[in-house]
Formats: sequence, C-alpha cells, structure tokens
Amino acid sequence: MKTFHDCIPCLMRQTIQAVRQISDDEQLIERVLRSALFLASKMDYSQTPALIGREIHKLIREETVNNDPYAEIKHKANDIALAIAPAIREEILASDNPLQMAIRYSIAGNILDFALYNGWDDERFRKSLHSSRTKNIDQQQLEILQAEIEKAENILILGDNAGETVFDRLLIEQLMPKQITYAVKGYPVINDALRQDAIFAGIDKFATIIDTGLDCAGTILSMCSRAFLDIFYNADLVIAKGQANYETLFNCPRQVFFLTQIKCSVIAQDLDSNVGDWVIASTQ
Amino acid sequence: MKTFHDCIPCLMRQTIQAVRQISDDEQLIERVLRSALFLASKMDYSQTPALIGREIHKLIREETVNNDPYAEIKHKANDIALAIAPAIREEILASDNPLQMAIRYSIAGNILDFALYNGWDDERFRKSLHSSRTKNIDQQQLEILQAEIEKAENILILGDNAGETVFDRLLIEQLMPKQITYAVKGYPVINDALRQDAIFAGIDKFATIIDTGLDCAGTILSMCSRAFLDIFYNADLVIAKGQANYETLFNCPRQVFFLTQIKCSVIAQDLDSNVGDWVIASTQ
Repeated sequence: MKTFHDCIPCLMRQTIQAVRQISDDEQLIERVLRSALFLASKMDYSQTPALIGREIHKLIREETVNNDPYAEIKHKANDIALAIAPAIREEILASDNPLQMAIRYSIAGNILDFALYNGWDDERFRKSLHSSRTKNIDQQQLEILQAEIEKAENILILGDNAGETVFDRLLIEQLMPKQITYAVKGYPVINDALRQDAIFAGIDKFATIIDTGLDCAGTILSMCSRAFLDIFYNADLVIAKGQANYETLFNCPRQVFFLTQIKCSVIAQDLDSNVGDWVIASTQ
Repeated sequence: MKTFHDCIPCLMRQTIQAVRQISDDEQLIERVLRSALFLASKMDYSQTPALIGREIHKLIREETVNNDPYAEIKHKANDIALAIAPAIREEILASDNPLQMAIRYSIAGNILDFALYNGWDDERFRKSLHSSRTKNIDQQQLEILQAEIEKAENILILGDNAGETVFDRLLIEQLMPKQITYAVKGYPVINDALRQDAIFAGIDKFATIIDTGLDCAGTILSMCSRAFLDIFYNADLVIAKGQANYETLFNCPRQVFFLTQIKCSVIAQDLDSNVGDWVIASTQ
C-alpha cells in the first residue's frame, strides 16, 4: 500500500509523541519535529507507510540519541497485559468456543498501539477488553479462520505490539500442539514487539521466535531475511496482526489472515469498515 | 498564544483538507502538502497559531490559484443555517430566558468550523444543535455575561465562521435595541465569515458590519486597522466567537468574553476543559 497524504500529518503527530516518551524538553521536540517536517516534504510517498515511518522513526532515534524511545511504555504494556492474562485465560477456557474466544482476545490486544494513540489510556484498554466477548466481527471469516487453523500443521504468526504479545500467547496456547512460529521485529520501531517482549509473554515455551530482521512496522517481504521468507512461504497458515502488516502484505503472493483493529480512516476505507471496527480479513 | 507543537500536524491535515475542497487531483494535493511541510519546517512557532495558519493558507491559495477554497462549503453552511433559523428563533422566543438561549445557540453555531472538522457532517451538526438547550455550560459565567450585556449600550461581536453568522444574528436580535457592531475577516481564510456572509445572515439589518482587515483567523490586534481598534477599545462589551479569537486575544488589554466550543486538546488544556465542551470565558 502506498502512503496516503493523510498518513503524513499522522506521522508528524507520531514524531512529537515519540520524543515525548523520553523527554519533555520542548526545544528537543521542536528540533526533531522540524527535521521530520523537512524529511516528509521530500519523501517518496509511493512507498508503503511502514517505510515512510521507518525513515521518520530512524530520524527520531538519531536526533534524540535514543535507540528505543518506546521502551518504557512497552514495559508498561507488557506488565499490564501479563497481570490480566490469568483471568482472560480462564474466560477463554470457560467459553463455548475457546479458539474463537482466544482469537477475539488476540484482536482485543491490538489496542496496545502507541503509534496511533497518545500514551496510556487505562479506560480505553479496559473497554476494548470488555467488548471482546461481544464485539461485532465477521463470524463467517472467523469460522473460515478456525477451519484453516484446524487444517494447518504449522502456523506463522506475525506479531505487532509489545503487550499484545501476551494476548497472542493466549491464542497460541489454544493452537497447541501445532508447530507455531512467532515473528517479531529485528530492531526497535515504535512500540512493536521485539524478541524480548515475546519471551516476556512466555511465547518461547510454545513457539519458535524469529524476527523479520527489520526496523520497520509491518512486514516488507523484499527486505526480510531468507530464513524468514522460507518460513513465511512454507507455513500452512499465516496470521498477521495489526494494520502495518495489512499495509505491507495485503497484496502478497500467498494467503495471509489479518487480525486487526481499524485505527485510521485510510485503512477503514480500504477495508470497507469504520475506525474502531475489529477485522478478520484474508488476502485471497 | 504561541503555536504548540501539536498544532503543526493539525495544520498539515488542514492543508490536505483545504485542497480537497476544490480538487481531487492527488498530484496537486501532494504538491501543496510538500510545500506546507517545507514551510512548517522553518516557521517561527513563537507566533500565534493564527499567524502560522495564515502563512499556510496563503500558500494553499497561491499554489491552488484559488482565492477562496472554502467558498462552496461556506455557501452550504450559510444555506443550512438559514433554513433552520426560523425554528430556532421560535425556540429562543418561547424559552424562559431568551437571551441565555440565544447565547447557547450562538455557541452551538460554532460547530460550523471546517478547519478542525473534515467536510460536512449533518449528524454532528444536528447533535450539536439538539444539545443547545441542555449542554452543560458555566451558569455563573452565563449570568455574568447576561449582566454585562444588560449594562452595555454598544457591543462588539467578533464573528468566527460562515453559517455561524446566522446563529449570531439570532443572538443579535435578542440584543436589540442596543448598538451592535459585528466584525468579520477582511479576506478569505479557511471558512471564516466575510462581509458577504454576515449580510447573507441579515446581520446588516441590526448591526454595523466591519472587518478586521486581515486574512487570518482570530483577531491579531497589532495588525488590525485603526478604525477597527477604535471600535474594539471603545465598545462597552466585546464578545468573541471561536477558538482563534481566544488564541489571539486571551491576553489582550481589555475585557473580552469568549464563546466557543473546545475543538482541540491544546485549547482544552489552556482553558482547563475537555474537547467538546462549550465555554464562556472572559479575560479579566
């Protein structure tokens, strides 16, 4: 997906927010914002938002001399998600269809996205979790995904955010004893999950963790390692979490199931949905 | 008020939206957006948002070779507001306190702001109107304003948006037979009311219309004409509509009553309120 013009103001907002994660020095915020505005004025918008965002977030890391501005909020998301995991696991196990309920919670966990929301919002997080049982999602797609899961022997899950990893782990528990691979990012970008976040969530007990080798949101296949691509193309089923994976894989040459919350009008339009919707979509 | 860093992404969003008012040519939108990004990267943020916005909207007008990109939406706002005016007038007249109800509707009309909202939204407009009777506003401030109005012989109202002018006219009817001056902008900027919008609303039947002489939102006193300043400083009471007037006059050397809806977090923070609130505030 190319970068829409509407993505640019959003990336400028992200820039301010990213610097605020680590500093309240208004002069620093201003310097980085000015650099980002200048950079954005001459970028190639035919690239996917993930690549545009990669350049912006690289600039932020360089100008703030901080390799991981979202480190603290990732820790917070991990801690909060882990604390509520036992109660959610119980609810999943007690439900009529534990796999479908686990899929629902995995989408619920996609609320933990700090590129699009400013800072932590306990209230929104609780609301999103609370709606997991009843939130309207395409039941037909859910059934199709369940059937694909049941058929598959090995499944690749492309993770999205730190903390969301805990919810993905609860889903992975329901996928046992299948062979699961869980992909994280290779380097810090926004609050995307890294290997350490997947391990913190206990995913290593159930799945092989790999990384894309990249420092950008989503999964840009042309830049991924050979090892990653082998797994991507040979998995029986690929489940991709979050908008950035949709943006980068919506037209890829194999079937991918996307689980995401719709967080911006650009993606809403593309998926014929509304901001706030929960979507299960597949490429083919 | 200086320009907050958060204002910059908002102005970039406005840029895209302004060009879309007159064209769906994505290449044109991109060209103007890139110019605005470049301009914003080197602007003086110690200026008020109205001045920063003025430079951006000047650029938009120049690059689109269109002197008034919001002309069509201003017409629409005028038409819709005028069509519902008789029903609202009846409601004002039938209420226990027509002046207070007219003030409420004048604030309700401030929803007609296309800098902050994308395009026309019938639903939001209807909701805003519907809440006029009961929307929570500071009753003490309302009483103070009513008392100031009753005391005043001549009143200056600083208008904000086209269409909102119709609601201001309904307020002005309740101010009769006082001597009223109604100020509009001197040149097109966003969807701010011009002389023709005030006349369309019939304000010329009740008030003297003047203009600030400026092509920027709000009222930047240091740039206003001597004629305007004479009226501004000699009025018994000044009522200023909308956020931009607050941004430019909050620390001016005379008392001003602001009537506005809170439309962004920057102003919300400054006025210790929330986005969506309706505010009556005064400088002293």
